[in-house]
Amino acid sequence: MSDVCSSCSAAGSCTSGSCSNEPQLSEAQKASKIGKIIAVMSGKGGVGKSSVTSMLAVSLNRQGYKVGILDADITGPSIPKIFGITEKANVNKIGVIAPQSRNGIKVMSLNLMLENEDDPVIWRGAIITQLIQQFWSDVVWGELDYLLIDMPPGTGDVPITVFQSLPVSGVVMVTSPQQLAGMIVRKAIKMAKKYDTTFYGLIENMAYASCPDCHKRIEIFGTPKGAEEAKKNEIPYLGQLPIDPVLSSMSDLGKIEDYQTENFDNIVQRILEEVAKDSKEKVIN
Amino acid sequence: MSDVCSSCSAAGSCTSGSCSNEPQLSEAQKASKIGKIIAVMSGKGGVGKSSVTSMLAVSLNRQGYKVGILDADITGPSIPKIFGITEKANVNKIGVIAPQSRNGIKVMSLNLMLENEDDPVIWRGAIITQLIQQFWSDVVWGELDYLLIDMPPGTGDVPITVFQSLPVSGVVMVTSPQQLAGMIVRKAIKMAKKYDTTFYGLIENMAYASCPDCHKRIEIFGTPKGAEEAKKNEIPYLGQLPIDPVLSSMSDLGKIEDYQTENFDNIVQRILEEVAKDSKEKVIN
Repeated sequence: MSDVCSSCSAAGSCTSGSCSNEPQLSEAQKASKIGKIIAVMSGKGGVGKSSVTSMLAVSLNRQGYKVGILDADITGPSIPKIFGITEKANVNKIGVIAPQSRNGIKVMSLNLMLENEDDPVIWRGAIITQLIQQFWSDVVWGELDYLLIDMPPGTGDVPITVFQSLPVSGVVMVTSPQQLAGMIVRKAIKMAKKYDTTFYGLIENMAYASCPDCHKRIEIFGTPKGAEEAKKNEIPYLGQLPIDPVLSSMSDLGKIEDYQTENFDNIVQRILEEVAKDSKEKVIN
Repeated sequence: MSDVCSSCSAAGSCTSGSCSNEPQLSEAQKASKIGKIIAVMSGKGGVGKSSVTSMLAVSLNRQGYKVGILDADITGPSIPKIFGITEKANVNKIGVIAPQSRNGIKVMSLNLMLENEDDPVIWRGAIITQLIQQFWSDVVWGELDYLLIDMPPGTGDVPITVFQSLPVSGVVMVTSPQQLAGMIVRKAIKMAKKYDTTFYGLIENMAYASCPDCHKRIEIFGTPKGAEEAKKNEIPYLGQLPIDPVLSSMSDLGKIEDYQTENFDNIVQRILEEVAKDSKEKVIN
């Protein structure tokens, strides 16, 4: 029995010389080669998950990596606006071509398929599930070092589908200092653990703001407790980020790629160390 | 043809003397009488929808109204924690008995049925849809002036089910100054309009913070534009609320009923005026 066969679920009962259990790859998947898939998750909405996903993409892109973002927040997609992408997604005979940011980050989001960015998508979970699978199987991602997935809040259809259908390498969790956010992020951590996920770590976002006048540090959402929360959940602690009005305005202007912050570089470094530690070194497709 | 028949979808083809199209009420519904159902919606997560729902409930309760909250954010429920309710929901022969806050606000939330508050609910939309319907049909709400529904982010299964299955009287929209939130709240407004909803108005939350030292007003998420947003969407503007660290900490402590803020009283007054204007004066069940 070959190495491939030994890990096959049909091993033992299979009598075929050639394996029939190999996954059927779409043309788009055959034309793609993706290094690592990182899901950015929070459980609770509004803790800055899309900002963290975008900043992570920008930072990896600056370091020379090829990066894509799959915007899995189907009913509340933010990524195209943050990157200022207005070009619609096109389809060729191989699959869907993801539009690119100014610096070449590939983005696939339902908002790139809608006529108006504020058109609502009034879809039940079964349809949303299919769309997520298509964003994975029918998009020509090409060669990427990192595909980041911006997950929606909650532990419903989309996260279930992502964990069941996509070969996620690991998860970055985002929380904020509110205990409420802590409780809901623990739900998301417990969910991800059920799918035997690797945790690259936890980021505490919105940890504080600075008064523009007197420069006092203001803990607007309460005392930060990210390090403690990470320890309690036995996942690496990656660091904290402030609420930065400049980030809000650059995101609103679609200019996240011009945003600079030192705080985040250390966090990215820590994520890359965790990724390197991760023994699952396989190329995904 | 009686008045009841004239609004019946079978009018014209019905040959029955007694109407067979009357909705079948559950025992719990027969034991309940609900004045108005207000859905609190945002589209985007983390703009303080659950805080607004809770503060609205507290304010109405202080004014002597009988209030219930249906926590429809199934995978990210916050309401029990904000009210410090730890008692589990019980079932009697009529239906599910909703636990009450210290001041008698009835709350139904999936977190009141879980063993641990941070257990995740890894359910697809079809199951979540059923649960929302049961929170409506199987909970003995009793006599309420107001039932508030804390909606989850997005425009997926839960909002669809709420608008299709529950006789919602009107919607309060919550947004924050970020343009991103504006875009996503517009999706939610467009969705609600498709269901021919009455809008009681829009609240701009997290409009600013105050430095505890120099008391400078800091517009952390950008320049407030709620009034403009409300006008653009042709819905009443209800006012703005600051980010208040005291609200965060009172919510984390489960003591929202002890929280006082003048800002909110005017908003509640405006909502009550809009409710009074609303011609749909029927008692729901």
